[in-house]
Amino acid sequence: MIYFDNSATTKPFPEVLDSFVKVSTEYFGNPSSLHNFGGLAEKLLSQARAQAAKFLNVQSNEIYFTSGGTEGNNLAIKGTAFANKKLGRHLITTNIEHPSVRESIKQLEGFGFDVTEVPVDSNGRINVTTIENAIREDTILVSVMHVNNEVGTIQPIKEIGQLLKHYPKIKFHVDHVQGIGKVALNINDCHIDLCSISAHKFHGVKGTGLLFVRDGVKINPLLNGGGQEKNLRSGTENVAGAVSLAKALRMILEKQQQELGQLNLISKRLRDGLSQIEGTVVNTPEKHAAPHILNFSIPHLKSEVFVHSLEEKEIFVSTTSACSSKQKTTSSTLLAMGIQEERAGSAIRLSLSYSNTMDEVNTVLSAIKETIEELRKVMK
Amino acid sequence: MIYFDNSATTKPFPEVLDSFVKVSTEYFGNPSSLHNFGGLAEKLLSQARAQAAKFLNVQSNEIYFTSGGTEGNNLAIKGTAFANKKLGRHLITTNIEHPSVRESIKQLEGFGFDVTEVPVDSNGRINVTTIENAIREDTILVSVMHVNNEVGTIQPIKEIGQLLKHYPKIKFHVDHVQGIGKVALNINDCHIDLCSISAHKFHGVKGTGLLFVRDGVKINPLLNGGGQEKNLRSGTENVAGAVSLAKALRMILEKQQQELGQLNLISKRLRDGLSQIEGTVVNTPEKHAAPHILNFSIPHLKSEVFVHSLEEKEIFVSTTSACSSKQKTTSSTLLAMGIQEERAGSAIRLSLSYSNTMDEVNTVLSAIKETIEELRKVMK
Repeated sequence: MIYFDNSATTKPFPEVLDSFVKVSTEYFGNPSSLHNFGGLAEKLLSQARAQAAKFLNVQSNEIYFTSGGTEGNNLAIKGTAFANKKLGRHLITTNIEHPSVRESIKQLEGFGFDVTEVPVDSNGRINVTTIENAIREDTILVSVMHVNNEVGTIQPIKEIGQLLKHYPKIKFHVDHVQGIGKVALNINDCHIDLCSISAHKFHGVKGTGLLFVRDGVKINPLLNGGGQEKNLRSGTENVAGAVSLAKALRMILEKQQQELGQLNLISKRLRDGLSQIEGTVVNTPEKHAAPHILNFSIPHLKSEVFVHSLEEKEIFVSTTSACSSKQKTTSSTLLAMGIQEERAGSAIRLSLSYSNTMDEVNTVLSAIKETIEELRKVMK
Repeated sequence: MIYFDNSATTKPFPEVLDSFVKVSTEYFGNPSSLHNFGGLAEKLLSQARAQAAKFLNVQSNEIYFTSGGTEGNNLAIKGTAFANKKLGRHLITTNIEHPSVRESIKQLEGFGFDVTEVPVDSNGRINVTTIENAIREDTILVSVMHVNNEVGTIQPIKEIGQLLKHYPKIKFHVDHVQGIGKVALNINDCHIDLCSISAHKFHGVKGTGLLFVRDGVKINPLLNGGGQEKNLRSGTENVAGAVSLAKALRMILEKQQQELGQLNLISKRLRDGLSQIEGTVVNTPEKHAAPHILNFSIPHLKSEVFVHSLEEKEIFVSTTSACSSKQKTTSSTLLAMGIQEERAGSAIRLSLSYSNTMDEVNTVLSAIKETIEELRKVMK
């Protein structure tokens, strides 16, 4: 099979699963237990935290393990809102965020928070000035994703961070779930206060993730209980998950360093090839785009039909994000970019990993061409 | 080593880890993806849900996978409170709940909810009448644990359920984390509306759990996002986690059926042996107690010192719950039972699994006797 749906989820690295099993088997103690068998687990957890921190160029005490990107985004946004509501109740975000950000913010509206949703341009990109113009006296949070999950646009995180450093009351949250391992992000240079990643997007296991919370930034917990993760995220620590996340993170960042050039070549070939196929139009912008996501439309062909036609050739791609694909809603990012319903409704997302090859790209391009022709015939 | 800290966490069954790895490797697709590779993952998830439902004698559509017991308890309690706040803002719980229940409820007080904490008797048991007396016009939730995690007392869940069925406005939540696989609980007979379990307490992997939500009971999500788990728990589904949870659940319930008699014998031997050791006093009541938890005190010996002395003999036990042990707080359950600070502060919890043997019990009893004598000598 050819798997081009890596933005939905990735195949765990075997080494990552080995770590998960080894820790689960040999160091299954509860890190909170007083005895030294629990202590061994706690030591592994601390090591995983230190490693993850090192890979992200932040401090160990700024890393909080979560159950994934959705929890990280919920915790960052609601945690900041509730902890800072006395300072203000205004939140700023964009109109192309992942549902875990969008819906968290929507839930906060029910708690009396006020939201400004800043629009993107036709490339799916935010203009820093629109963020600046949206800032009010009572703004406490700006949440902007790094790499868009549907079209791959890279947001001007550094510029936003440089703007926000002049507003110490405003916390800056970045959903880095689609960017990690593919598009570099310097958390400190960008003045980010909160940053979420999810391991299953970079060949870790599902159900694991982490949230960076800058030292000194106060947020409220979502999950109360035994006080784990410095009282910010209670629940018995998933030690095997944390260790395997640290390993996946190390491996993906090594690949980013060594194989990004090749991924860029593959990505370029994919874009060039697609633009030569009659009847397709690429939605991912040429500039400020991540190397692993390519979104295109085949106007007059329903994307769902196209996905199923490709799967018959053992090629797996998606329509919009995995979350939205079953709900059969049109990509909110494409609509936000001003793309018409018809074209947005025929959108296909190809998303790559470092394991995908040039051969696979060529096979997929031929299959896309062939499938379009087949479907056109059927429709006539 | 002899591991008598199974209420803190258990060693995953090898078969459970095998399932986790197999699903993670071969069926790593995102269940929300439109293509049939995601469909395979979705099928596994549905099967896991159906199996878990069958084992718990409930319906598939009443099972919601979570990241563990803490999330389940938080979701059940806060979800019910926020979804029903128009019906009332009064919650009833006990003074011996797990921190994930207690702290969730405490957080709700900050949102204007009013709480009645019903006290336990000297056996750590709730009297149904005290619950009845606490009910008000505006009561919307009663949350009572099945088996107490510190002393093992079994609460009269069925009687409480029979009481509450006359109050359709009140939802009944049961924290079944310590009971599952050890003390039978009929969710339907007990008229339970919400019931949480955590897989790592029954040889599943950490970071997995489930919440039963009775069909028709409305609760608000804690984690918003892509709408997974019927919009009640967003986030890419941990399919390998769910499948491995279902397997662990099947295995533990089989063991419960086949090996509970032996566990009872072991438990009795432990209690009898302890009562013969001079200077110990058993805190776990004789009646209405789970077979796997035995709590005792060694007055005048600090429990922390005792835990570390036993660990030198490769025997792992705990003071209170794992969550609280590092915070060095005295067991809240023992204090709630009216046990004096001095005795409560010297409490040791032994917690068994079906893997523990009579030989281990005898070794532990000898070691306890020996350790007490050694420590008494040092103290003189």
